[in-house]
Amino acid sequence: MVRCTYARVSPRDHETTGGTDMAKKAPRRTAQRILEAALDLFNRFGEPNVSTTLVAGELNISPGNLYYHYPAKEELINRLYEGYEAELNELLHASEGVHDVEDAWFFMHTLFELIWRYRFLYRDLNDLLSKNRHLETQFQLVLKNKSRAIRQLIAGLSRAGHLEIDVHEVDTLAQSMVVVLTYWLSYEYVRNPREALEPAHAQGALMRGAHHTLHQLAPYLGREQRRHLLTLSHAYNGEDAGQHPSSSSNATPRVDMAV
Amino acid sequence: MVRCTYARVSPRDHETTGGTDMAKKAPRRTAQRILEAALDLFNRFGEPNVSTTLVAGELNISPGNLYYHYPAKEELINRLYEGYEAELNELLHASEGVHDVEDAWFFMHTLFELIWRYRFLYRDLNDLLSKNRHLETQFQLVLKNKSRAIRQLIAGLSRAGHLEIDVHEVDTLAQSMVVVLTYWLSYEYVRNPREALEPAHAQGALMRGAHHTLHQLAPYLGREQRRHLLTLSHAYNGEDAGQHPSSSSNATPRVDMAV
Repeated sequence: MVRCTYARVSPRDHETTGGTDMAKKAPRRTAQRILEAALDLFNRFGEPNVSTTLVAGELNISPGNLYYHYPAKEELINRLYEGYEAELNELLHASEGVHDVEDAWFFMHTLFELIWRYRFLYRDLNDLLSKNRHLETQFQLVLKNKSRAIRQLIAGLSRAGHLEIDVHEVDTLAQSMVVVLTYWLSYEYVRNPREALEPAHAQGALMRGAHHTLHQLAPYLGREQRRHLLTLSHAYNGEDAGQHPSSSSNATPRVDMAV
Repeated sequence: MVRCTYARVSPRDHETTGGTDMAKKAPRRTAQRILEAALDLFNRFGEPNVSTTLVAGELNISPGNLYYHYPAKEELINRLYEGYEAELNELLHASEGVHDVEDAWFFMHTLFELIWRYRFLYRDLNDLLSKNRHLETQFQLVLKNKSRAIRQLIAGLSRAGHLEIDVHEVDTLAQSMVVVLTYWLSYEYVRNPREALEPAHAQGALMRGAHHTLHQLAPYLGREQRRHLLTLSHAYNGEDAGQHPSSSSNATPRVDMAV
């Protein structure tokens, strides 16, 4: 079974020696509150649409106070990114503990929960990359690490005798899974820009994302594990995915549906 | 075999009755040149990073002349989008003519060529949607139409006896294919932001995109068609995908690779 622990977003140790007495008193707390407010606003409205002045206004602090903690918006973004990266790398290591589709489902769902909490990074990813040198280099590593974790997950299922795939197809499968994993929330956003990324839609979006990412494994799974995966998807997704998992098996009836 | 024809990007009929004699003389030509220059600059630098002043500068015309044809940047974007949409819908209909993997490969490659020509739409899609009401509604249709075309493609292969899939898994497969199709270039961009969207990288990116999108069909194909798909991918992709297609068949050896 996969075990995951989370590190919380935490501000860097406050190194500035200047500032007012008030700012000195509770620098950690204010820096942390700024991070949390920025994350919330970026997630809701998109990072390009949120100024530092808006973040300060949300917290009822002066722009100068925010500037004291984060002299540029880019620093705010980079601090949030570092929190995401730390959690992601810890979580991706858990792919080594995946031995069956139940582990895989739990792993994928936890990964989507993390992506959801930092969804602003994914919402305007290319725009962020074109403006931010640090993200530009670091996000390449994110994709590589995700890809390695998915290959480990596939290898774990294979070692347990649950999955059969030609070794030359593994990388293609892993990369397609990484693309669906990385861009599922963007896909949900395009389909429903006004609501998809609001908290009320989290559960459905995460479940659909995990379902579609993992379903790419389905045809390579043994009969029992395949059925179990479809049952898990059905149990969690409700009517959105795999409405009739009981009828799904390796004995695949031909499809000739009206489209 | 699929047959596809292209309509070129063309400016709307020039309806303005005002303007100078010079502007009256060749309004079509200038409007068209502005569209083409904007498309090129948007594709190279990203739409958020290209102002109308830059487009005018590129053409050695005054900002006022550009404004005469396109009073707002949004109109320029919408005109380009309309060109894309017209070509896309014509192309998507060709999915009805897909009867084997060679048709499917040609269809997918043509689709990726079109997406490449309008890659600025995909590069900053969510940012565009958040600022542009017209795109916000129209792009939802784009995804629906792509999804319908992919289901038609799956149905065509199924009718020809080349593919077997449980009817309840078709929608999940089609949606995952649409996600890879839609976000493949974004994925390439994140992996290599400085070069991925430059013209020199077009062929490799298109091939990898078509390969990864279509490979999701592979496990559902009959032995011969599956082998043919892997051979096509190999022939076009070189070392990037399916290095050893001759070893790929339905008799899949177990993978237990070091990752």
